[in-house]
Amino acid sequence: MPPPLPQGFSAAGAACGIRKLGADLALFRSDRPAAAAALFTRNLFPAAPVVVSARHLASSHGRARAVLVNAGCANAATGRAGHAACGRTLSALARLSGFADDELLVASTGVIGELLPDRRITEALPALWEALSADGLDAASAAILTTDTVPKTATATFFWQGRTARITGCAKGAGMIHPRLLPSSRIATTTAAGGTSRERGSRGGKPGPLRDAPAGRSPRHATMLAFLFTDAGVAPPLLRRALALASARSFEAISVDGDTSTNDSVFLLANGASGLRVGSHNRSFGRFLEALSAVAGSLAEQIVRDGEGARRILVLEVTGAHDHATADLVAREICRSPLVKTALAGGDANWGRFLSAAGASGARFDPSRVELSLAGVAVARAGSAVPYDRARVASAFRAPEVRARLVLGRGPGRVVFRTCDLTEDYVRINADYRS
Amino acid sequence: MPPPLPQGFSAAGAACGIRKLGADLALFRSDRPAAAAALFTRNLFPAAPVVVSARHLASSHGRARAVLVNAGCANAATGRAGHAACGRTLSALARLSGFADDELLVASTGVIGELLPDRRITEALPALWEALSADGLDAASAAILTTDTVPKTATATFFWQGRTARITGCAKGAGMIHPRLLPSSRIATTTAAGGTSRERGSRGGKPGPLRDAPAGRSPRHATMLAFLFTDAGVAPPLLRRALALASARSFEAISVDGDTSTNDSVFLLANGASGLRVGSHNRSFGRFLEALSAVAGSLAEQIVRDGEGARRILVLEVTGAHDHATADLVAREICRSPLVKTALAGGDANWGRFLSAAGASGARFDPSRVELSLAGVAVARAGSAVPYDRARVASAFRAPEVRARLVLGRGPGRVVFRTCDLTEDYVRINADYRS
Repeated sequence: MPPPLPQGFSAAGAACGIRKLGADLALFRSDRPAAAAALFTRNLFPAAPVVVSARHLASSHGRARAVLVNAGCANAATGRAGHAACGRTLSALARLSGFADDELLVASTGVIGELLPDRRITEALPALWEALSADGLDAASAAILTTDTVPKTATATFFWQGRTARITGCAKGAGMIHPRLLPSSRIATTTAAGGTSRERGSRGGKPGPLRDAPAGRSPRHATMLAFLFTDAGVAPPLLRRALALASARSFEAISVDGDTSTNDSVFLLANGASGLRVGSHNRSFGRFLEALSAVAGSLAEQIVRDGEGARRILVLEVTGAHDHATADLVAREICRSPLVKTALAGGDANWGRFLSAAGASGARFDPSRVELSLAGVAVARAGSAVPYDRARVASAFRAPEVRARLVLGRGPGRVVFRTCDLTEDYVRINADYRS
Repeated sequence: MPPPLPQGFSAAGAACGIRKLGADLALFRSDRPAAAAALFTRNLFPAAPVVVSARHLASSHGRARAVLVNAGCANAATGRAGHAACGRTLSALARLSGFADDELLVASTGVIGELLPDRRITEALPALWEALSADGLDAASAAILTTDTVPKTATATFFWQGRTARITGCAKGAGMIHPRLLPSSRIATTTAAGGTSRERGSRGGKPGPLRDAPAGRSPRHATMLAFLFTDAGVAPPLLRRALALASARSFEAISVDGDTSTNDSVFLLANGASGLRVGSHNRSFGRFLEALSAVAGSLAEQIVRDGEGARRILVLEVTGAHDHATADLVAREICRSPLVKTALAGGDANWGRFLSAAGASGARFDPSRVELSLAGVAVARAGSAVPYDRARVASAFRAPEVRARLVLGRGPGRVVFRTCDLTEDYVRINADYRS
């Protein structure tokens, strides 16, 4: 059973045929105007839906009514034709819903460099619209998956002055997961192909020189998408602040394979239906942030646990760094190291690989102050090996979750980062062997 | 048949028991004083042999007589005890050879964090010394291997004013290969453990709290080591310059798995035995550099071809970048991307993964100017997909060597970088599954 959506939100999922099998189209709607915030990939090649959504948020001053999501085609590196295809799907949704174009947000995941088969989407929209339901999270959270093996949902409630608000979210992601995000306001407003706002909603666009994403092929590309909804009332600037804070310690603190996607997107809509109003000058913001962080943290962890081929996860704390950026740099290097990740796959407490990756990260720290603990057992101090209980650490490395703690010095910089093991199944999933 | 060593050089290999099976100790010697230059890893945790060699080169002002190499134990993250163990092996060699301590260089490869079993080495030294031979490259190049499947050697000759000089080298490396090197002069003279020069050659050092590298376990750690010898006469400053130039386009332009080792070392000794003298003010330097680059380039390519589990290599040209550093950053990100490397494994021309990795590299470039060609066929222009001959590219991706060219703009920055595919065998080799 998926968790309930907050008041005033509905969702639906459908199969529109971008993928050969299974649902591939989802819609989320608020029954009233909602404040909206989003974070998007730092990749220099943002997909068309990323650019279009960022423009809409700028144009609407942080308001939205609905989010349309497709799986099976990323609509990235598709230039003007890709922007036009994206625009046509939103124009169709605007006509159907009566919402303004810039109240509509959009996200895509799938193969890069293939054109969105937008006709399949627009033809499926009326039925999808009819299917919208307060119980629709089940269908919607399943329709956004690619190589994921399970849907990912989470919910939390919080209280303020006698009122209760709910935050519910869903996410997808299993591969090409190493999110580094920017606020939507910082996404470039022109694209690699020089697409401009003139193209949005264009019906006259040529089909473009690219072939459509083929329905007959399995998706070989993934990304991280997350959709968060709350019935609290939150003004857009406060909503953006909360999303950035919650994301930094959740969606931006995970890695499956070190590849930062062209499509990573995190959306947060707040429609105020609960009557609970979050303000910046009282403790309501802290409670909201706590609940939001719980939901975002749960979704991020579910993504790592469902990482392509994953059987074991690593929870790495890097602490004592000069600043957060240093801790982040070191954590990312360790968590993307194939040698750390294969050691994890083998249940092999090969701690030298952790230290080597930290030293190779490019971060500046004093190696003579470094301490490393695995499963609570110190294995290196002052940058060098120390005797330790090998049986205890070896046993901990065979558990489904392994904990490591790297102390870089005495600074305030700290992150907790999660990654999964690198297994033969990851290679099989992504190599797409076609002899 | 391995190539001949240059005049005046001899080599030998032996099994001293660090590893359970096979040779694990090599020695190279010049019969006369030689100029010497070296590059070492940028990793903040350089192994004891790296720090000791860098100190010796500084102390000798770039002169050396011999290089001692062991496989099976990296002697990294071993602190004072590791430095002392390294020092004992060189003291023993100094007594045996009559060379000064600081004329001796040293390199190690193997597991991190385990203490060098130096007694095994010192006990094997007399026989190794006796075995030194002008034909010894065969034995020496085999003794330095870890997960390598084949020895790697290369040679070249060059001519100047009626004389002929030879450059011959050998190398090892198959995993933990993503070298980023520094001149020996820039290696810190104090180590993570605070080891100081007092410890060098110490006989009174305690055995240390660490256990020795266990002879009964297969090596689960690799690194890049390269040893280059020439009978040309080259002054140390010129030798350092030539090595830096040749290495930048060979040893520093390869990746197997994106992990920069604690032990990467490249040595170049020039003993002048040929009578050919390389000067900085005539064309002899250009000829020397050309021959050196050929040898270094061949060895680097052999390392990638023998990458752990590799069946296919990628030769990636990144060009038109603002500067060399930008091209290098983009090439490294593409060449360490698991998604690019698994696509290569599958013979799948999934070019979107190349573009996405470039965009995620953190390098600054204008995505609207980017062009990507695979096997000479343009697949993306102006940052977007273009129609192309899919059959031709698909066929090229099934060859043992795949070529890709990424044009970032019109700048002068250019690199040619090599990597191998990421296969299930890589995971098997490194996961060390011990159920």
